[in-house]
Amino acid sequence: MGPGDQEFLAGKTIEVIKMADAVVGYKSYVKLIENLVENKKVVSSGMKQEQKRAEKAIELANEGKNVVVVSSGDPGIYGMAGLLLELTPPNLEVEIIPGITAASAAASILGAPLINDFAVVSLSDLLTPWELINKRLNAAGQGDFAIVLYNPRSQGRREQIEWACEILLKYKDPKTPVGIVRNAKRGETKAVITTLGKMLQEEIDMLTTVIIGNSDTRIINGKMVTARGYK
Amino acid sequence: MGPGDQEFLAGKTIEVIKMADAVVGYKSYVKLIENLVENKKVVSSGMKQEQKRAEKAIELANEGKNVVVVSSGDPGIYGMAGLLLELTPPNLEVEIIPGITAASAAASILGAPLINDFAVVSLSDLLTPWELINKRLNAAGQGDFAIVLYNPRSQGRREQIEWACEILLKYKDPKTPVGIVRNAKRGETKAVITTLGKMLQEEIDMLTTVIIGNSDTRIINGKMVTARGYK
Ligand SMILES: C[S@@+](CC[C@H](N)C(=O)[O-])C[C@H]1O[C@@H](n2cnc3c(N)ncnc32)[C@H](O)[C@@H]1O
Ligand SMILES: C[S@@+](CC[C@H](N)C(=O)[O-])C[C@H]1O[C@@H](n2cnc3c(N)ncnc32)[C@H](O)[C@@H]1O
Repeated sequence: MGPGDQEFLAGKTIEVIKMADAVVGYKSYVKLIENLVENKKVVSSGMKQEQKRAEKAIELANEGKNVVVVSSGDPGIYGMAGLLLELTPPNLEVEIIPGITAASAAASILGAPLINDFAVVSLSDLLTPWELINKRLNAAGQGDFAIVLYNPRSQGRREQIEWACEILLKYKDPKTPVGIVRNAKRGETKAVITTLGKMLQEEIDMLTTVIIGNSDTRIINGKMVTARGYK
Repeated sequence: MGPGDQEFLAGKTIEVIKMADAVVGYKSYVKLIENLVENKKVVSSGMKQEQKRAEKAIELANEGKNVVVVSSGDPGIYGMAGLLLELTPPNLEVEIIPGITAASAAASILGAPLINDFAVVSLSDLLTPWELINKRLNAAGQGDFAIVLYNPRSQGRREQIEWACEILLKYKDPKTPVGIVRNAKRGETKAVITTLGKMLQEEIDMLTTVIIGNSDTRIINGKMVTARGYK
């Protein structure tokens, strides 16, 4: 469903929601499309209930219902698409509707930090061991990628963003521009442009996406812009 | 403007196109929104004219016109956003409207290959030296990222995809699933799922996005799905 504001829903997305018999999703996402799901069976639940939601959707589909499972952003990027494809029996059909992911929404507010090659890393070590996240951050640093951090910090995970910053400082200049966007294109957006050396002074939480520049990233008229190689 | 089919345009995108006095863009992209630009000044040009298009847009804006510059996918990912922000004088305002990028569109057709961390690399060495692309491919391989290749091959650039495949085979199993999608969500889509060892046997051109799995990527009911870490 894109970043959140309804003006970023694609026509296709609105259409499939309208055609659905049932809508299953995380509470605060379903709330963002409340006006579109009136008169439908709505099953919403809290965080970390992804597997239960997927199972519920499959149960409803097996009863013959046309079910929409909502994900924020792009369902194929840290969204519900993977789990659904893993759990759905072959007799049911799954269609994935792509959406505007948080990286794109956040980048559009900051300027054009992702105009050249970039890496996307989630700092949540609930499903991926920190060892592997650590390895990926090192690799992304070595490759001089611009880097997008999803799930940078939550109530229960406070330090991962500090570790990430420390790792990236091995490869990147502390003056490297960093953009921090909270609620990109979703209600009240808050965006800050700072540097890798100072980013930990800013407020970072689970509603935030962090974008770290590469060695070609500059501030131009207040915007964070990655130059596209040599000119 | 998203991958191409109009059903993937966001309401916001349609609105800004409708409000524009002038529309500037690459010929084949402007063609995809022909019905929305009737009665507007339209400036379209061919490939490699990006800088001229940006300058033309700025010229029109300086005349007081409300100008839309169209990019396919997300303008902030190998699109027009960077050049525009680099060239626009501070007296003019630039708003970037994010879109669904080719990675998301292609992934949605293949399954869920990008559900965990991934790297995005363009194989075009027109603006980025091959040396740096080479370094990034090695880093992405080392980090066991799923990898999205944009601009994998053009009329004039035939071998880069072969070099890329060779580099990634240093780190990834030849049986690693690879998805190749031509014209994702844009007219007649063609999608193939193969392996890293065999991908060069497939048709790959400039209308194609290539997605290479990580070590957790599997084929499930014919779909390419990256498992999200340990379960
Ligand atoms: C479980 S992931 C879901 C990502 C989503 N599927 C997508 O493609 O954007 C949740 C994380 O995405 C990021 N995120 C999602 N929507 C956002 C928004 N509107 N603004 C800023 N960050 C967002 C945050 O980093 C958040 O912790
Ligand atoms: C100059 S880049 C533009 C990328 C665009 N800004 C985006 O975010 O999707 C052009 C490359 O994007 C990829 N691409 C763009 N649209 C596509 C589509 N509908 N299907 C497959 N690949 C696409 C191809 O790799 C192509 O060579």
